[in-house]
Amino acid sequence: MARTPDEALMFKPNGIITLISDFGNRDPFVGLMKGVILSRFAEAKLVDLTHEIPAYATATAGFWLARSWCYFPSGTVHLAVVDPGVGTERGIVLLQVAGHAFLAPDNGLLDEVARSSHEANWWQVDLDQLRTMLPARVSNTFHGRDIFAPLVAEIAAARLMPKEVGARLNGRVCDRQLAAHPANFGAAKEVTGHIIAIDHFGNLITDIEVTAVQQFLNPRIHFRGQVLVLKNTYGSTAAGEMLALINSFGVVELAQSLGNAQVHYGARYGELVVVREA
Amino acid sequence: MARTPDEALMFKPNGIITLISDFGNRDPFVGLMKGVILSRFAEAKLVDLTHEIPAYATATAGFWLARSWCYFPSGTVHLAVVDPGVGTERGIVLLQVAGHAFLAPDNGLLDEVARSSHEANWWQVDLDQLRTMLPARVSNTFHGRDIFAPLVAEIAAARLMPKEVGARLNGRVCDRQLAAHPANFGAAKEVTGHIIAIDHFGNLITDIEVTAVQQFLNPRIHFRGQVLVLKNTYGSTAAGEMLALINSFGVVELAQSLGNAQVHYGARYGELVVVREA
Amino acid sequence: MARTPDEALMFKPNGIITLISDFGNRDPFVGLMKGVILSRFAEAKLVDLTHEIPAYATATAGFWLARSWCYFPSGTVHLAVVDPGVGTERGIVLLQVAGHAFLAPDNGLLDEVARSSHEANWWQVDLDQLRTMLPARVSNTFHGRDIFAPLVAEIAAARLMPKEVGARLNGRVCDRQLAAHPANFGAAKEVTGHIIAIDHFGNLITDIEVTAVQQFLNPRIHFRGQVLVLKNTYGSTAAGEMLALINSFGVVELAQSLGNAQVHYGARYGELVVVREA
Repeated sequence: MARTPDEALMFKPNGIITLISDFGNRDPFVGLMKGVILSRFAEAKLVDLTHEIPAYATATAGFWLARSWCYFPSGTVHLAVVDPGVGTERGIVLLQVAGHAFLAPDNGLLDEVARSSHEANWWQVDLDQLRTMLPARVSNTFHGRDIFAPLVAEIAAARLMPKEVGARLNGRVCDRQLAAHPANFGAAKEVTGHIIAIDHFGNLITDIEVTAVQQFLNPRIHFRGQVLVLKNTYGSTAAGEMLALINSFGVVELAQSLGNAQVHYGARYGELVVVREA
Repeated sequence: MARTPDEALMFKPNGIITLISDFGNRDPFVGLMKGVILSRFAEAKLVDLTHEIPAYATATAGFWLARSWCYFPSGTVHLAVVDPGVGTERGIVLLQVAGHAFLAPDNGLLDEVARSSHEANWWQVDLDQLRTMLPARVSNTFHGRDIFAPLVAEIAAARLMPKEVGARLNGRVCDRQLAAHPANFGAAKEVTGHIIAIDHFGNLITDIEVTAVQQFLNPRIHFRGQVLVLKNTYGSTAAGEMLALINSFGVVELAQSLGNAQVHYGARYGELVVVREA
Repeated sequence: MARTPDEALMFKPNGIITLISDFGNRDPFVGLMKGVILSRFAEAKLVDLTHEIPAYATATAGFWLARSWCYFPSGTVHLAVVDPGVGTERGIVLLQVAGHAFLAPDNGLLDEVARSSHEANWWQVDLDQLRTMLPARVSNTFHGRDIFAPLVAEIAAARLMPKEVGARLNGRVCDRQLAAHPANFGAAKEVTGHIIAIDHFGNLITDIEVTAVQQFLNPRIHFRGQVLVLKNTYGSTAAGEMLALINSFGVVELAQSLGNAQVHYGARYGELVVVREA
C-alpha cells in the first residue's frame, strides 16, 4: 500500500543521536553539545561518528555521513557540524531520508546523503520560528552548542517534528551533484576521481564508486604513475606492497599492505586517481 | 524564601558524570575509569569533556571545566583528573556549586570553577573515612581508577553525599585568584593575559574575559607586534587573515580565518596577549 | 559447592560491551560498529577501551585488554578488533573467562587474557552456522562492522550464548605463552623484557611483571646503558629526572618525572629492558 505524502514525512525518533564534526577530541566542544542535549533530553543515546574531519572539510564529512547513516536504525537523528561560515548569514537545513533526520549548516554537507535516496525531503530551518527552543543568548562562533544541539535534542525527544522546523524546500537541487561524480560515467574510457578521505591506517579513500569501476573489463587504477590491479583485501599482497581494492564503503581505495599508504606516498586530500581499461 | 544552610548543601544526582583529564585517548585509562564506575553504578551516563588536556596542565583543565559545567543539568557530578602529584601527599577535594559536584586533586584545578559562583562549598576528602568504598589495594600511579572513579560512582548513585566525604573547608581561599585575572582590571590602560588553551582549529584562547575588554572604548588586541581589531566571527575577514574575537566562552581568542593560528604564529601555551585602547 | 561444567559455561550478559581496536578516532569506523550494535540491541552500554592501538599491534591490544577486563562487572562482552588478516582465511574465536566473554580474530590477541585465569574456555566461531545473524553481504575489509559487531550485539542481548557460536576448542594452547614472558623467570640473574606499550604521557610500559622483579633483592632496571632504581610514583624524583616504577597495571614502567620519556629517549615499541641484581 502506497504511503500518503504525510506518512512519508512522519518521523519516529528512537532516541539515538549521532554526531559528526571537525571539532576534534582535544577540546570540550563535543562534550558541551552532549551536555546541552542531555539537559533537554536525558534519555538520549549519543554516538560519535567522528570529530576528526579535517577542519572545514564539508565534503569529507558528507562522504562519511552518506556511508554511515544506514548502519543506524530508522528514527536516528544525525547532527553534522562542519561549519566554516558559522555566525555569517549561511542557513541551516534539515533533511529527512528513509526515516532518518539530519541537521547541518546549509553548505552542501548533506548533499551526498540526499543523493543516497529517492525520498529526500528538505526544510530550511527558521530560527525565528523556533526561538522559544533556543537559549536567550546565542554565540557567533559555536552554533553546535547554542543552536544545533538544542534542536536535535528537541527532535530526538519527539517534541519537534522535522516538518515543523521551517519552510519546505521542494525543488532543492544538489548543485555539487555532477562535480562529485566521475565525469565520464556511463561509457567511460577513463573515470576520474580524487582522494576524499585518508583513514587512520593511511589508506587513501577515493570518491570513485564501485559502479563506475564495473564499466571496465580489466580496470587499472592509476595514481602518481603507478598502475594497480584491484585486489580483494589488504592481505592479498605481500607486506609493504601497494594495492587497490573496493573498500567496505563501496569506493576505490589505495593501501599499503601492513603499511601506511599516506606516509609511503606523502599523499594529500584532493589528489587525482584515474581508472582506465588495462 | 531563603534556603537554610542545610538545603544549600543538598545534592540531588541526576546520574550524569562528566570526565576531564590529561589521560589522552590512546590508552585504556579512561575506559578503565568507566568500567569501575559502571561496576558500581550501572545506570551512570558518562560524558567525556576532553582527555587531551596537555599533560599536567591543571590550569587549562580548570579553564575549560569552569566554562563547561553550566551546560549540564543540576545534579551532574564532574570528575577532573590532572594530577601531577599522584601518589604523593597531595589531597583530594570535593566542590559543590549550584547543585553540581566536582571531585579533583587538591592542586588548584577547581579554583576557577569555584570563582564562577558565590555559593561554592568545599570539602577535604578523607580517604580513611571512606575506606570501605575503596578497593583493598590502591596503586600509587592511577588514582583516577582506584580512588576518583569509585567515589564519583558512589556520589552519582546517591549513596555518598558531598558533605559526607570529609571535613568542610570553610575559609578556603583561592590563592591563584589574583594571578589568574588581568592585573589592572577596573580602570585599565592595559589588560594583560595569556594563551591558556589552543583548540583543535589552532585558535589561540586567552584568559582575558569580555568584561575586561569592555572597559575600553576601542580595544585593540596586541600579540607579537601585530594589532588586531575585534571581529564578530571567523568569517568576518578574508580567508587567511588574522583576527581577534570574543569567543563562545566569553574570552578573547586569536584566529586565522579558515586557517590555523597556532601553525601561523608557531604559538605556545602561556604567551602574552595585551589589550590596549586604540 | 563445585559448579558443574555446564554452569561454568553459563554467561549472563549485563548489557555492557567494551571495544578495543586499532581503528583510531579519525574515521567513523568505531561509530559504525556502535550503530550496528544499537540497531540490534538498543539497550547496549558501549564503553571504548581505546581505538589508538598502533596499527596491526595485536600484542599491545592483548596487553591492555588483559589488564582492563577485570575492572568491568561480570557479564561484560569485550570486542577486540586488531585484524591485519581481515578478509583472509584467519578464523574468529570466542573466549569466556570468569563470566566475561571476548570476541576477536584468531591471531593471538586474546592469549594473554586467557592466561589471566585458570578457567579459560575457547570456541571457534563458525560463521556458516551463524549466517542468519549476519548481514547478507559481508565486506572483505571491515569485519568489525559486518561480523564482529552483529555477533557481540547478539551475545550481549542474551540471544546467542558463547557456547552456541561454534565448536569448543578444548586443548587450546597459547603458543606465544613462553615468548611473552621473561625468559629466565624463576631463578634469575637477569630478567629480560620489552617495551610493549607507550602511553599518552610518553611512559614506556614493559611486559616485565612485578612477580619477576620480586625475585631480586635490589633490582636495577637497565635501559640504554642507564641504570634505574624502582621508585614509588612519578613525584618521587625531581622534575625531569628518569625513574622506573611498578605501574598501576603491575609491570615495570620507565618514566620522566613531569616529562615525556618517549621523547627523551626517542623510544620505540619492542626495545629491550633488563632487570638485574644491584
